[in-house]
Amino acid sequence: MKTELDALMSASDLDAVLVQGAGQHNPAMVYLTGGAHLTGAYLVKKRGEPGLLYCSAMEREEAALSGLEVRLMDRVPFSELMAKVDGDLLEAMVLRLEMILEDAGVTSGRMAIYGKADLGSGYAILSRLQERLSGLTLVGELGHSVLGQAMTTKDEEEVARIRQMGAITVGVVGQVADFLSGQRVQDEVLVDEAGDPVTIGTVKRHINLWLAARGVENPKGAIFAQGREAGIPHSTGNPTHTLRLGQTIVFDIFPSEAGGGYFYDFTRTWCLGYAPDEALALYEDVLAVYQQIMGELRLGTLCRDYQKRTCELFAAQGHPTICDNPQTQDGYVHSLGHGLGLNVHEKPTFGVGATESDRLDPGVVVTIEPGLYYPDRGMGVRLEDSVYARPDGVFEVLADYPLDLVLPVGS
Amino acid sequence: MKTELDALMSASDLDAVLVQGAGQHNPAMVYLTGGAHLTGAYLVKKRGEPGLLYCSAMEREEAALSGLEVRLMDRVPFSELMAKVDGDLLEAMVLRLEMILEDAGVTSGRMAIYGKADLGSGYAILSRLQERLSGLTLVGELGHSVLGQAMTTKDEEEVARIRQMGAITVGVVGQVADFLSGQRVQDEVLVDEAGDPVTIGTVKRHINLWLAARGVENPKGAIFAQGREAGIPHSTGNPTHTLRLGQTIVFDIFPSEAGGGYFYDFTRTWCLGYAPDEALALYEDVLAVYQQIMGELRLGTLCRDYQKRTCELFAAQGHPTICDNPQTQDGYVHSLGHGLGLNVHEKPTFGVGATESDRLDPGVVVTIEPGLYYPDRGMGVRLEDSVYARPDGVFEVLADYPLDLVLPVGS
Repeated sequence: MKTELDALMSASDLDAVLVQGAGQHNPAMVYLTGGAHLTGAYLVKKRGEPGLLYCSAMEREEAALSGLEVRLMDRVPFSELMAKVDGDLLEAMVLRLEMILEDAGVTSGRMAIYGKADLGSGYAILSRLQERLSGLTLVGELGHSVLGQAMTTKDEEEVARIRQMGAITVGVVGQVADFLSGQRVQDEVLVDEAGDPVTIGTVKRHINLWLAARGVENPKGAIFAQGREAGIPHSTGNPTHTLRLGQTIVFDIFPSEAGGGYFYDFTRTWCLGYAPDEALALYEDVLAVYQQIMGELRLGTLCRDYQKRTCELFAAQGHPTICDNPQTQDGYVHSLGHGLGLNVHEKPTFGVGATESDRLDPGVVVTIEPGLYYPDRGMGVRLEDSVYARPDGVFEVLADYPLDLVLPVGS
Repeated sequence: MKTELDALMSASDLDAVLVQGAGQHNPAMVYLTGGAHLTGAYLVKKRGEPGLLYCSAMEREEAALSGLEVRLMDRVPFSELMAKVDGDLLEAMVLRLEMILEDAGVTSGRMAIYGKADLGSGYAILSRLQERLSGLTLVGELGHSVLGQAMTTKDEEEVARIRQMGAITVGVVGQVADFLSGQRVQDEVLVDEAGDPVTIGTVKRHINLWLAARGVENPKGAIFAQGREAGIPHSTGNPTHTLRLGQTIVFDIFPSEAGGGYFYDFTRTWCLGYAPDEALALYEDVLAVYQQIMGELRLGTLCRDYQKRTCELFAAQGHPTICDNPQTQDGYVHSLGHGLGLNVHEKPTFGVGATESDRLDPGVVVTIEPGLYYPDRGMGVRLEDSVYARPDGVFEVLADYPLDLVLPVGS
């Protein structure tokens, strides 16, 4: 949680953090500034002190909405800096950053780097800066970064915002279900009033529209993948395809608050009209594992143990799993879930790379999303909900929606 | 243009380029892959050869839509790599990248780094990688990067896509105008059918909805700022404010294709109902400069000369300018425009940092957006269109829309 940041910095021997990049669609910056509408900014926070937000003069009012102390990025006009270094942009950028750090009183110790930005120029600037700094070490963390650790456990306000995104998400999922149910059927294909086939592209356009009507964003699109494509977990679905009865449709939707805020993540698998035996059997296997795992979640336990457990359960049903064969593209091929917050994928991790630090600590919000995939049999099934590990030990699904496979159509 | 990339690499003595990060909302990756739906990938391109796209097994079909040769990021399962380095994630990431570069045949010379990604981990991985590489130098460019130079001049397909975004943008602007015109007026404030004040928040929700209905994104929001806020160029407008007659409203809208594709950028300034003399005079000054500059645009000329020219024109009207006082917050306070493409702001540059390379070359698409700002007088005016420097020397505004100041309401 944000309140733990200083303690986490201390534990990792960090004296300061530097966040760079835009004010929005930049999780680290959104986390510490609240998502101000800034083209580019630097946030410097010393351990034990509130952050300072450095922005351009033109964006000072937007920056002030963060509630942080706002200072101008360019106390010396950038044109003067450029003149001073004979127009060498790299030198000018390094010099500006040095001046900012000096202004913020960060001159020694270890400073972690955060923010989503252009990697090439960032690498050049930070490398040059590091060469020039005598007492200050720039730290780029992987895996469990200090800021990432703070972000992993959510406070009540954050959970409320994710829950609100959940309500919006299942609201739109309901609209999609109603839309599909209301269409007609012709030769096993969904058609509209005019008799034209309903395509995946049409469904996706409606999803975007209904999300926008609720004031949220869909920055990463949605997955609406049918048949063979449903059998490939990250296939997003071909917009030109028509919707056929009796095919598994994986509908995975992960919208966020406007400006790149908190995400929700949710998946259902539908068969329009009816489910063939083979699809139903696959669905029942996934549902059984979903329910088993949901019932076994406990505070403080290791995420990777649930991945192992999921593999065991699917293997016992006779499916290949990623635990037995890391390269398998049939059966259970991905990890059980992931943390959810300002990133659609964040800590804790359930699959490869999960460590002792990836735990179901009080306050985490994670997805639980077992799935089975058989592209060559033209099907895939995934069920996903986002779950809050409440401090009282209850694992709460943050948005309720039926898990049913068959979606009646053409009624 | 993309076809010039090898020649540009040669001119900058680059043997390869490496693009990292997500497949969408990542301009460098979108430029070279077409915007595949990839969580994370590496694109490696040697000079004179097509690019190779390295992705996870789960995303291989999405990657294949790029038309590039697709290879798996993990020829060796990442879990095996992790085991080999005793769970050191940084080491495993560096090792994976080394294996990818070796697979792609990039072992010596200079390789430029591109892509929008997490700066901290990126800095750590690239620094460690550079330490380990003997013959290969990692290059982070600032300013006119090689890829940026290619992206600066647009081919016909790119211009067609920007033009299409322009048509969508002015379509939505027209909807906003019709919406505002159709409201009622009560005590100088716009009210709806029910007599409730229309707020800026309501207008923005409609903008998002109408953009979504046209299948595009609004990743950076829109500026709809009135009165004093219109006097601060990047103030986005307070959503709780009601709309008052006779105030300048700066409406700046910059949506993009879905998935983080090509942007359009457009601004009009409106006064609802009527324009007070002071606002009209400010508008007429901006309009005169807009028209003068539009008429003076010539192929091959330096962008910074137009910035200087704009300052001269505004100064001659009696306004303070950023040329005379780089810190001014009154008068003409920003640069004349910027390149437009997969970034809402890209090369060429008109203001601070513009070099001999920032030219109106055939194929560039730039915004022309003079403006005047007087926050303490409660007003600001900006007019902006996006302009294509056609190879035949014509500077074509890519979407037509009236420049009128007064928007009749309550008719």
